[in-house]
Amino acid sequence: MTKTNDVIAADIGGTNIRLARICNGLILEEVRYQANFSILRNMSKLEAENHILHTIEQAMQQLHHDNVQGLGIGFPGFFIGNSGVLAASPNIPQLKNFALAKKLSDILHIPVTAQNDALCAAIGEQAFGAGQGHKNLLHITLGTGIGGGLIFNNTQYTGESGMAMEFGHVQVAYENQARLCGCGNHGCVEAYASATAIAARYKELAGLETSSKAIYQRAIDGDTQAADILESAGVYLGIAIAQAIKLLDIRTVTISGGLVGAWNILHPNIMVSLNANLIPPLKGKISVIPSNLQDNAGILGASKLLG
Amino acid sequence: MTKTNDVIAADIGGTNIRLARICNGLILEEVRYQANFSILRNMSKLEAENHILHTIEQAMQQLHHDNVQGLGIGFPGFFIGNSGVLAASPNIPQLKNFALAKKLSDILHIPVTAQNDALCAAIGEQAFGAGQGHKNLLHITLGTGIGGGLIFNNTQYTGESGMAMEFGHVQVAYENQARLCGCGNHGCVEAYASATAIAARYKELAGLETSSKAIYQRAIDGDTQAADILESAGVYLGIAIAQAIKLLDIRTVTISGGLVGAWNILHPNIMVSLNANLIPPLKGKISVIPSNLQDNAGILGASKLLG
Repeated sequence: MTKTNDVIAADIGGTNIRLARICNGLILEEVRYQANFSILRNMSKLEAENHILHTIEQAMQQLHHDNVQGLGIGFPGFFIGNSGVLAASPNIPQLKNFALAKKLSDILHIPVTAQNDALCAAIGEQAFGAGQGHKNLLHITLGTGIGGGLIFNNTQYTGESGMAMEFGHVQVAYENQARLCGCGNHGCVEAYASATAIAARYKELAGLETSSKAIYQRAIDGDTQAADILESAGVYLGIAIAQAIKLLDIRTVTISGGLVGAWNILHPNIMVSLNANLIPPLKGKISVIPSNLQDNAGILGASKLLG
Repeated sequence: MTKTNDVIAADIGGTNIRLARICNGLILEEVRYQANFSILRNMSKLEAENHILHTIEQAMQQLHHDNVQGLGIGFPGFFIGNSGVLAASPNIPQLKNFALAKKLSDILHIPVTAQNDALCAAIGEQAFGAGQGHKNLLHITLGTGIGGGLIFNNTQYTGESGMAMEFGHVQVAYENQARLCGCGNHGCVEAYASATAIAARYKELAGLETSSKAIYQRAIDGDTQAADILESAGVYLGIAIAQAIKLLDIRTVTISGGLVGAWNILHPNIMVSLNANLIPPLKGKISVIPSNLQDNAGILGASKLLG
């Protein structure tokens, strides 16, 4: 059978799995599954690996995939260079040195590559979204957690062990009362500006458990507590971006993820604190722009992994 | 005349200029000048440029240079890629878009390259010093100011506009009382851990104006104020290094500069706060090692710029 230019791309998350057949950035068909990967924590390494392989293989069967170029996977974890080997995944501790791409390739008999999910979002944003035309790009994923991906000189920056751009753990507060982050440290920007943190803060102050999306709507409707929390999240994001820019010297920052819906409140606050915290020659020189790919940055980036 | 493998390297600082003839990392002869570049601030752009060109040209005459491969220059400023064009120099504001390498090459009739001084130190440390054998290296210059240079996959990371690794301006305190930095912001690590900051803090607490070197000797001799200040500088350095590592994912950090003399006090404090502030998979994985090149990292790096 003649190969098409189509590829299968997978966007693996902690609660959702999504696979799509994609041609040049165009999603032709897709499937979404709820996949509670927290059950993996109670499995052995081999069981967890097989569960992941089987889940992806099963999802593939729902798509036309006989004549595709291959499969590209965005996965929440640390990959060694472009090897497709998952060195570690913070939420699934037993998954160490898991040759995800190689094992799937052996099962599916097609080329498979895999890379960190936030880096995939950066690749997708540069290729098809708000980062188009920029050979240097810092991309931030702003959802239940906060991640980052860097492209410098059109090259993915993975770091020495695939752990680069742990942007969510840049610290924006160092006081004793700084908020506790899931990583165990205090003061990480993820503890101030992720959807999880925003919802937790609103529950703390207003006594109501609701989503960050609903909190944004409340802010728009005049709820000053909701507005304060989102403004403050923007301020902290700006501080964290400033630290990154002082090290990376990148002029264009794109942001994707669920919280982009609160852009009208976040963006002005990001810009004020970003510019306040930069060195003088960089003040006013950084663009922070929202993704225009809805929730597709990651899966479109995964579709580009095969080259 | 037959060319040798020798090059001339220059290490240009705010108060000192040093030129050396170097062959494969070996300094064959050198000259040092005091050069108070603060006088440049009162000159026009053209006068300042000519003063710098003339100063380097004059210094060249003191060395055997007839048969060298060329001249490599480490200069405190931001260079666009490997163009040798000085985009800006924070301490000499009128020096913008100064084609330093090209103009010197026209005068001297030999190949000339120029790059940021801290990046030169990183190159020198990797080629000849404590960074040997590491293709990934974060180098920190710890003297009157604090700078940084990154080599990833054996490639110099310059950033989009030559301003990458402004490590001295990573913030380690955000409170209202955070110390004022020369850049105008508060809380930069340079305001806590540079030789200048250490001397200023000692004057503040002990009422005595002395050098960071003398403060280290006092700490060794039992002066608890001196020891506290140096220990605190180490703690803040560790915090700043943690922020950088969470973005860059580099396992080896080398430090050069005058304060390396206080290593016995700095290093244990750096390591405690570094490991406390990293994400779990990086804790205990980072080596922070002192330069073994005395004050030669920068000039040896400059000698490698010609390739």
